[in-house]
Amino acid sequence: MSGSAHHIVIVGAGFGGLETVHRLRGAPVRITIIDRRNHHLFQPLLYQVATASLATSEIAWPIRHLLRNRPDVTTLLASVTGVDKEARQVRLDDGSTAPYDTLVLATGARHAYFGHDDWEPYAPGLKTLEDATTIRRRILVAFEKAERETDVKRRAALLTFVIIGAGPTGVELAGTIAELARSTLPRDFRNIDTRQARVILIEAGERVLAGFDKDLSDYARKSLERLGVEVELGVPVSGCTAEGVLYGDKKLAAATVIWAAGVQASPAAQWLGVAADRAGRVVVEADLTIPGHPEIFVIGDTAAVLNPEGKPVPGIAPAAKQQGRYVADTIRGRLRGERTRPFRYKHDGSLATIGKRLAVIDFGWIKLRGAFAWWIWGLAHIYFLIGVRNRLSVALNWLWIYTRDQRSSRLITQGRAAGEAQRSAPCR
Amino acid sequence: MSGSAHHIVIVGAGFGGLETVHRLRGAPVRITIIDRRNHHLFQPLLYQVATASLATSEIAWPIRHLLRNRPDVTTLLASVTGVDKEARQVRLDDGSTAPYDTLVLATGARHAYFGHDDWEPYAPGLKTLEDATTIRRRILVAFEKAERETDVKRRAALLTFVIIGAGPTGVELAGTIAELARSTLPRDFRNIDTRQARVILIEAGERVLAGFDKDLSDYARKSLERLGVEVELGVPVSGCTAEGVLYGDKKLAAATVIWAAGVQASPAAQWLGVAADRAGRVVVEADLTIPGHPEIFVIGDTAAVLNPEGKPVPGIAPAAKQQGRYVADTIRGRLRGERTRPFRYKHDGSLATIGKRLAVIDFGWIKLRGAFAWWIWGLAHIYFLIGVRNRLSVALNWLWIYTRDQRSSRLITQGRAAGEAQRSAPCR
Repeated sequence: MSGSAHHIVIVGAGFGGLETVHRLRGAPVRITIIDRRNHHLFQPLLYQVATASLATSEIAWPIRHLLRNRPDVTTLLASVTGVDKEARQVRLDDGSTAPYDTLVLATGARHAYFGHDDWEPYAPGLKTLEDATTIRRRILVAFEKAERETDVKRRAALLTFVIIGAGPTGVELAGTIAELARSTLPRDFRNIDTRQARVILIEAGERVLAGFDKDLSDYARKSLERLGVEVELGVPVSGCTAEGVLYGDKKLAAATVIWAAGVQASPAAQWLGVAADRAGRVVVEADLTIPGHPEIFVIGDTAAVLNPEGKPVPGIAPAAKQQGRYVADTIRGRLRGERTRPFRYKHDGSLATIGKRLAVIDFGWIKLRGAFAWWIWGLAHIYFLIGVRNRLSVALNWLWIYTRDQRSSRLITQGRAAGEAQRSAPCR
Repeated sequence: MSGSAHHIVIVGAGFGGLETVHRLRGAPVRITIIDRRNHHLFQPLLYQVATASLATSEIAWPIRHLLRNRPDVTTLLASVTGVDKEARQVRLDDGSTAPYDTLVLATGARHAYFGHDDWEPYAPGLKTLEDATTIRRRILVAFEKAERETDVKRRAALLTFVIIGAGPTGVELAGTIAELARSTLPRDFRNIDTRQARVILIEAGERVLAGFDKDLSDYARKSLERLGVEVELGVPVSGCTAEGVLYGDKKLAAATVIWAAGVQASPAAQWLGVAADRAGRVVVEADLTIPGHPEIFVIGDTAAVLNPEGKPVPGIAPAAKQQGRYVADTIRGRLRGERTRPFRYKHDGSLATIGKRLAVIDFGWIKLRGAFAWWIWGLAHIYFLIGVRNRLSVALNWLWIYTRDQRSSRLITQGRAAGEAQRSAPCR
C-alpha cells in the first residue's frame, strides 16, 4: 500500500467498526483502526461472563490478531480525545494525531443513569469485560458473605438480587442468576439455602422485552416467574444506595443491584461539535455522515438513525454490522465516482434467552418461543463467534451447563481477597 | 455429622489443604476449610495464564464446588488474622473465631524480594491469578506501546523482557515469552518486528534449573538460547527500577521485568509465635506438628521439612500433597489411638517445560528431555487438572498453540483502558 492511498481512520473495533474493515478488503485504501481496548468483544454473550457461565477469553479477541492477514490495516491501542474536522485529523491521548481522508466513528455506548450517576457504584452496568467480572464478583461474594452471616436481615439482603431494566440484557441476567441460585449453587453451601435467594426484575415500562411482540413478552414474563424471578412492571426506580433500591413506594434491601436500564452514546458528538439526541447519539444524514462533512461517518450505537418507516434503528449488533457494510460500500463507490444511496436498515429479528433452555425469537413474519427457539439462539450465537477454538470451547461450556448445571467461571478475581476488603480504594 | 465430632480446621485450599480434606473422606470428623480466595489454583500452569496461553477459569475452581459432595466439610471465604493456641481457635478478619480440635495450616508462600520490597512494583511475581493477569497485561501492553513508539531507545526498552530467577517458573516464562514474540505475534504488528524483542533470563546461581541434573540444566540453557532467550548466569540483580534492571555492572533498560527468584512463606509462624527459617517457613517436628502442640500441623510451602537424607523437601505440589495425605492418615490413626510414624518424603521427579515443544524430566533413575518429555509433561498436567471439561478445554488450547501458534487469552483487562493510564492509582 502506498502512503498516498486514501486513508480511512476507524475509531472503535466493535461490530460496526470491524465490519467496515472486513468489507473494505481489497479496496484501494489504507486503514487505521483505533480502539481504547486491545480486544473486540462479543457483547451479546457478555451477560454469560457476568453470571459465571463463560470465561472472558471465550467472547473477546485481540483486534490486531483478527486483522493479522490485512497488511492494509494498522491497529492502534489508543484513546481518542477529539477530532479536528478542518485539519481532518483525530487527536490521541499521547498528544499525537492521526490524519484521515475518511473518518468512521463507531465508538459505541455506555450504560447511563439518566442524570443519576451517583447510582453507578451501587448498581453497576454491563458493557465491558471489566463490568462483567465486577458483576460476577459481586454476585459470588454476596453468596459467600451470606454463608458467613448470622443476622437474619442482613443475610436476606445478601441473598437479594435486583436487576433494573427488563430489556434482553435484564431478562437474560435475571433468568441466569435465578438458575445459578436454584440449580448450580445449592449443594455447595452448608449454612444457607441458595434456593431462597430472591431475584427481582424491575421495569419502569409495562412489559418485559418491550421490543418484542406482546405475546412473546407475556411468555417471557411467565417463564421468568416459573424460574423464580419476581417481575415488577410499571414501577420506576427512584434510588440506588448501599442498602438497596427504592422503587414505587417500596424500599428493598439488596446487596447486589445490576443496572440494565439505559445507555448513553460515547462522546463522539462532543468531539465533532454536532447535534445529539437525548441519549447522546449523533444525528446523522441519510448516508450516515454528519451535516457538511461527507467524509465523516458515524455508525452503530453512537449514531441516531431512522429506518425507512421512521422508527429508530435499534442498538444491536446486526444493525451496527449493516451500517459498517453500508459505509464500506459507500466509500468504495465514491472512490469510483459513483453516487451514494441512503442507508436502509433491514430488521432480521430479535432474540432473547430466558435461562438455559428457553428463548423468544421475533422474526416479524414468525414468532418462536421455548426450547426450539433456545436451540436456534444457541446455534446462531456459536456461528457468529469468531474462531473454531472459541466455538468448540463455548459449546463445551454450554453442554456442561445444560447437562450438569456446572458453570466453569465461578472465580472471584480482581477484587481484594477476603479480609482485605476494608483497605480503602475504589479499585475494582 | 454431630456437632461434637472431632473438628478439624484447615487453613488454605492449595494442594496440601485439599489433599488433607480428600484423604479424610469418611473419617469421624467435621472439617472447616478456610481460604482468602474462593478458588483452588493449579499453580504449575499459572505461567500459561501470564503468557496468554490459558484462561484463568481453566486452572482455577471454586473450592466449595470441589467439595460440594462432602456434607462433612464447610467452606469459608475468610482471611485468618491469628491463632490462639491455648484457646484452640483461629481468629478471622470479621472478628469471629473458629474453634478447632486439630488445626492444619497450609497457607502457602508469596514471592519474596530478599529485603528489597521496593522492587515489587517494577518486578511483579507470579503466585495468584491476579499476578498472572497483571503480568499478562504488562507483556501485551509493552508490545502495544512499542507499536506506537517512534523513539528508537524507548522502543527497544519496551521490547525488552527480563525474567529474574531461572527455576522452573523463570525458565517456563522466558521460553514462552520468546515464543510469543517469535511465533505468535509477528504478523499482528505493522510498525515493529516482534522477533527483535529481547528476552533475558538472569540467574544469580551458576545454572538454570539448579534442582535438576547438570546435563538437563545444560540442555535447558541451550534450548532456551535456541528459542532466542539470552541466559545470564552467575550475576545477582542489584536493583529494579521503573527504567529497568541493574545486574552485575550492567544497566538494562526494560519495560517488563518479572520476578521468579524467591518465595517467602505466609505469616503462619507469626500467628503461632514459633521459630521460622530464613524464608519464613515454620520449623516443624518429624510429624509436621509444631513443638508442644501436637494438634497443630503445618504443611506445604509454609513448613520447613527435611527429607530422610536431610535435604529440604522442595516447595512443589507433589510434596504438599504427600504431606496432606500424611496429616490425614495421622489424624485418623490418632482417633483410633494408634502411634504415629514420622513423615517421609518420596521424590517422584522434577519437570519443567521450555517453550511449547520441549521439556526436561528428572526422575532420578531416568532423565528425559526434548519432545518426548514434553508429551509426558503435557499428559501429566492434563491428568492432574480437575474436571473433564477443563481437561478438554486445556487440551484444545494446547492443540491450537501447538499447531497454529494461536494463544487464546491475549486480553488486556483489569487495568485502565488506553489513555486512562495517567489517572494516578496503583490499582492493578
